[in-house]
Amino acid sequence: MSEYKKIKNEKINIDAQGKTIEVGREKLMIAGPCAIESYDQLLATAKFVKSVGANILRGGAYKPRTHPNSFQGLGNEGLEILKAVKKEVGMPVITEILDVRDLKDVYDIADIIQIGSRNMQNFSLLSEVGKQDKPVLLKRGLASTINEWIGAAEYIMDESNEKVIMCERGIRTYNDYTRNTLDLAAVPIIHKETGLPVIVDPSHSTGIRYLIEPMSKAALACGADGLMIEVHPNPDMALSDGEQSLNFEEYSKLMKSIKF
Amino acid sequence: MSEYKKIKNEKINIDAQGKTIEVGREKLMIAGPCAIESYDQLLATAKFVKSVGANILRGGAYKPRTHPNSFQGLGNEGLEILKAVKKEVGMPVITEILDVRDLKDVYDIADIIQIGSRNMQNFSLLSEVGKQDKPVLLKRGLASTINEWIGAAEYIMDESNEKVIMCERGIRTYNDYTRNTLDLAAVPIIHKETGLPVIVDPSHSTGIRYLIEPMSKAALACGADGLMIEVHPNPDMALSDGEQSLNFEEYSKLMKSIKF
Amino acid sequence: MSEYKKIKNEKINIDAQGKTIEVGREKLMIAGPCAIESYDQLLATAKFVKSVGANILRGGAYKPRTHPNSFQGLGNEGLEILKAVKKEVGMPVITEILDVRDLKDVYDIADIIQIGSRNMQNFSLLSEVGKQDKPVLLKRGLASTINEWIGAAEYIMDESNEKVIMCERGIRTYNDYTRNTLDLAAVPIIHKETGLPVIVDPSHSTGIRYLIEPMSKAALACGADGLMIEVHPNPDMALSDGEQSLNFEEYSKLMKSIKF
Amino acid sequence: MSEYKKIKNEKINIDAQGKTIEVGREKLMIAGPCAIESYDQLLATAKFVKSVGANILRGGAYKPRTHPNSFQGLGNEGLEILKAVKKEVGMPVITEILDVRDLKDVYDIADIIQIGSRNMQNFSLLSEVGKQDKPVLLKRGLASTINEWIGAAEYIMDESNEKVIMCERGIRTYNDYTRNTLDLAAVPIIHKETGLPVIVDPSHSTGIRYLIEPMSKAALACGADGLMIEVHPNPDMALSDGEQSLNFEEYSKLMKSIKF
Repeated sequence: MSEYKKIKNEKINIDAQGKTIEVGREKLMIAGPCAIESYDQLLATAKFVKSVGANILRGGAYKPRTHPNSFQGLGNEGLEILKAVKKEVGMPVITEILDVRDLKDVYDIADIIQIGSRNMQNFSLLSEVGKQDKPVLLKRGLASTINEWIGAAEYIMDESNEKVIMCERGIRTYNDYTRNTLDLAAVPIIHKETGLPVIVDPSHSTGIRYLIEPMSKAALACGADGLMIEVHPNPDMALSDGEQSLNFEEYSKLMKSIKF
Repeated sequence: MSEYKKIKNEKINIDAQGKTIEVGREKLMIAGPCAIESYDQLLATAKFVKSVGANILRGGAYKPRTHPNSFQGLGNEGLEILKAVKKEVGMPVITEILDVRDLKDVYDIADIIQIGSRNMQNFSLLSEVGKQDKPVLLKRGLASTINEWIGAAEYIMDESNEKVIMCERGIRTYNDYTRNTLDLAAVPIIHKETGLPVIVDPSHSTGIRYLIEPMSKAALACGADGLMIEVHPNPDMALSDGEQSLNFEEYSKLMKSIKF
Repeated sequence: MSEYKKIKNEKINIDAQGKTIEVGREKLMIAGPCAIESYDQLLATAKFVKSVGANILRGGAYKPRTHPNSFQGLGNEGLEILKAVKKEVGMPVITEILDVRDLKDVYDIADIIQIGSRNMQNFSLLSEVGKQDKPVLLKRGLASTINEWIGAAEYIMDESNEKVIMCERGIRTYNDYTRNTLDLAAVPIIHKETGLPVIVDPSHSTGIRYLIEPMSKAALACGADGLMIEVHPNPDMALSDGEQSLNFEEYSKLMKSIKF
Repeated sequence: MSEYKKIKNEKINIDAQGKTIEVGREKLMIAGPCAIESYDQLLATAKFVKSVGANILRGGAYKPRTHPNSFQGLGNEGLEILKAVKKEVGMPVITEILDVRDLKDVYDIADIIQIGSRNMQNFSLLSEVGKQDKPVLLKRGLASTINEWIGAAEYIMDESNEKVIMCERGIRTYNDYTRNTLDLAAVPIIHKETGLPVIVDPSHSTGIRYLIEPMSKAALACGADGLMIEVHPNPDMALSDGEQSLNFEEYSKLMKSIKF
């Protein structure tokens, strides 16, 4: 089980308007909507989550969806909104990349580049983000083993970029109560096997609002380096993942209930 | 998903040598060997785990094993050892029942009767333990849904016994790093859907020693009512489950590191 | 993977009203309702399935159900109906046992004793059916590995009964289109590893009527020693498993379409 | 479950040296090595598989591997070899594409373009192969639902290309005997839900040589439109997937044992 090179990665520092977030020392509290829907939606969310302690803004411009006729994100318009809100609110931002041909556009705006679960073994994409110098958030694949997930991180690190942050987001099992099964043991496992930081996404992993607070607490208790949480001004109107998004009041309550 | 009767069970009190453990208010810290191997082994373990804070002693007399030629436990001799050690050390004990015909013998000794994962849907056995008055620890089946697990608890409670304690012990998934995948979301789910207490078994769920401490912390952080941990004087010599058992020093370190 | 004793079991002969079915040479075509609901229901079904080629009648008297308030079968009354229909129609019968205490009653009537998926690791029950001389149909557990399934067969054979017939009935996976995932590779695997006969249950494994015919053909093509199929005079009115039961016309069509 | 547009795709014709293979009427018997290793290896394999009835040659130039230090295929050199062998032997060929930037090169050589399991939800790649006119073989993802797999096909067909051939290659389950669990029910399901042709890969799905023949028979019995089988002149020396590849004699025996 210890077949992996222990990679004691270089420090991952994220520039947050003058001050610096050092991953591993300070928790990454990532929050924001699943998809960027409008300037107003993103701005309101950013201001709120920052006010209650979030230190990174999330928002998807390109959304991978099961069927082609579902909402696919605002694309480049979404990136423009993200750029404007980032400047307005002064928060570092994370956004997902789906296509190697979008890398330049995403690089210009993102402080952390996200590789989503469906692309965890898109090795061309992994190599390309490995050739640039921004930190990469590597979500675990829908049904990936630990070995495959670390292998994917190695594709990035084998280029010149060791700034990989792993993200446990639940795995696919027979269990039908939750959307996925959150595999929290992955947190200490990744720490031990690779030395890389690991954050947890309690929103996608459970898909159920009332589980986000207890799973956030559990994630931090076993050593997670941060949390990634979906927040939307009006979850019932969200164009994607509404049922697992917190509204502002719920997110505020969560942030008060956890220690980080 | 809220198809279940909310069962606000009567208080579960466990008699611990004069004082009383009220499940839900005080954490159940269950510890001991997977299988009872000898009087000396169990006595030493019991004294030690009690000295560092465990409040219930576990030990299996009947062991369900995949193949018939594996060690099957000491049977009635094991129960006699458990009885003697219980008296000597003054700890309440939990032990597993496999066969309805053993109920009387187990009842005489056990303070909590355990139904193991393989028997979670042995409905005859569930009904029989439902007809007596000792608390029942109901381990989740190897690959049980939440619905099936609650259904099994209903078989016990539909008789006259509402003193059911649920135990999350990991579920079977494709994930091959750990023995099972610990599904901690089950803790808040069972609380919400049934009102029953839930404890967590980090030993069977992970099968790996170094994961027991972080998973114990995570379990308590999301509201678990206790922990069930395998402790053996000499794990390398254990007749079953050695690779996931803690030795005395490791258990002592664990108990110091968690708050309960 | 070849850690198992190759058990070349004694011939399994089933007495079918004077003539003998030799398992392995002649296919076991088991058909009948999930649960025995009435004499008329079972009699009509038995006559029909026999007329189109079935050679064993199935019918459950004790039904293991997820929740205690679901229909649990007619119990002893069901066994009496099975006995009467067996005599009337002249077909050997198979029925499931759930509780060691029912063994004598089931033994008196059944030509094959069925152990269901939920009891595959009820080792007390396995040992008891191992001590008698009727053939035992051992269904694979809901999420059992090949190793566990063979281990369960060993519990029976380690007593004096080597007449074990294995039954693949689908395993639990993340796949949500079918009720279970039919693992047909288990057929050649069990043949190779143990020498035991293996039949396939396309009804429980898929849970969908239109899949029963193609899966029956696939099962026979890879060497299955028979099929176990749910047939009901009026599936829409069935007290259990209606959605996966064939009506008479569908079963007749199936039997014409397969070669066995 | 019938939420999908029934897509009665245009006929898929594959040009095979003058004559035409009409998918659906004639079985696709695809064979060849996992990875193209040399001109001699591919040429010998192509000649042999053609001589015993294969009608399409497979061979990977770009190989997606879990770790970056594993053999990644010969890349463009592999494509050149494939082109030469195709011409020499006169067989249509299929090869996998991993990166949108390779599409032109692959298009020039391949008669069928393969999308592998890891890229089943690489939506950029799906859209690009949807914009060209060669048939696309879409392998099911490692742990994809039927819904997700059909969704992926829709991404291709929503562009201008309806020539999609689905390939069941086993899914990820807890089952540890085989490499994956072959889900043959997917064959009639895809036929019913979409009208698309479906072939089966018994090599990747089982990962074990002795299972390839029975699973091939089962696949054809339930309606598969073809088989995709790994053949290597010397499986023990193969640079990838040797343990599941057939040698020439084994493949010859297989082709004689199945009817297609």
